[in-house]
Amino acid sequence: MLGLKTASNSEWVTIAAANLEQILIDHAHCEKKAAANGMAMIARYPDRDQLVREMIALIKEETEHFEFIFEELQRRGVSLTRDRGDRYVQELSGHVNKNEPRRMLDFLLVAALIEARSCERFSLLSKCEDIPADLRTLYHELLASEAGHYRAFTDLARAYFPREEVQQRLDELLDIEAAIVRQLPSEPTMHG
Amino acid sequence: MLGLKTASNSEWVTIAAANLEQILIDHAHCEKKAAANGMAMIARYPDRDQLVREMIALIKEETEHFEFIFEELQRRGVSLTRDRGDRYVQELSGHVNKNEPRRMLDFLLVAALIEARSCERFSLLSKCEDIPADLRTLYHELLASEAGHYRAFTDLARAYFPREEVQQRLDELLDIEAAIVRQLPSEPTMHG
Repeated sequence: MLGLKTASNSEWVTIAAANLEQILIDHAHCEKKAAANGMAMIARYPDRDQLVREMIALIKEETEHFEFIFEELQRRGVSLTRDRGDRYVQELSGHVNKNEPRRMLDFLLVAALIEARSCERFSLLSKCEDIPADLRTLYHELLASEAGHYRAFTDLARAYFPREEVQQRLDELLDIEAAIVRQLPSEPTMHG
Repeated sequence: MLGLKTASNSEWVTIAAANLEQILIDHAHCEKKAAANGMAMIARYPDRDQLVREMIALIKEETEHFEFIFEELQRRGVSLTRDRGDRYVQELSGHVNKNEPRRMLDFLLVAALIEARSCERFSLLSKCEDIPADLRTLYHELLASEAGHYRAFTDLARAYFPREEVQQRLDELLDIEAAIVRQLPSEPTMHG
């Protein structure tokens, strides 16, 4: 899916479906952090008009998704708990080049890959028969939105960097991402 | 205005009107940071349902305001520049108690005071004849929104803390805020 080089470990969706409240809480935090990352990108690259405009659209959508998931939790009588961090995102982010302009390219492509993996995970959840139908519908809708964000981040990369450089680095990061995913312990988190 | 104990230095609005692009850029960053603060409050107090719900509404509004100001800059052919920080907010935030639960009360009241001061500054800008009419209208609309946010933060404080404790601490912080404002160097920034 979206160029990802490995599928998620097959047991992940079973563990996720058996721990739906934990998944919802972690998912809410993921949406919030995606919006926060949009703000961080604006703070880092304020003079890139196209990037700023795309990030505004992203922040709005991710905040709306955060609200959907928060309201879903509230309907279940569940409050948010503290964010426990996201090992997958931390490991992937560790590969961002420290020096500009490659740092900017890496930030865009790492964000794209996180959206792609989230998209794959939503696809698994949307097809899992142990999950209530209304939630499966929600996951199906979010899947499309995440695919759009993947596209937005890769389009930005191509707008600011030569197409060949983007493709080469995307290929490297896809390898790195696949290696990280293969080693994940299959925990009940969105990227676990 | 909204209980503030001192008016802004009278030269501020003159300096602001003479440096409108700088004001717009700084203002955009203020809106973005207000949204980011909403996210930080959710990260700090995830299990406070009422707070989370209010912060979602706040993040949406502040992101929309950021977009308004960004588009206003784009119409003028101006890109954002890097955020230079906000001495006023930094000084006021330095008075947040380090220990819970007073830390939470202080975060709510400091955020309320920043909204109140922004509201006063928008009022000054909306009445300044050296500023184009369409911008004065925008500032007038934002003024009402900031007043609503002041109310939201003080309501949250009263929802989670005894009314008398809130009033006493608000009074102390209003004194601190007034002392900070009197010493500001009247720079062309929203809180300068």
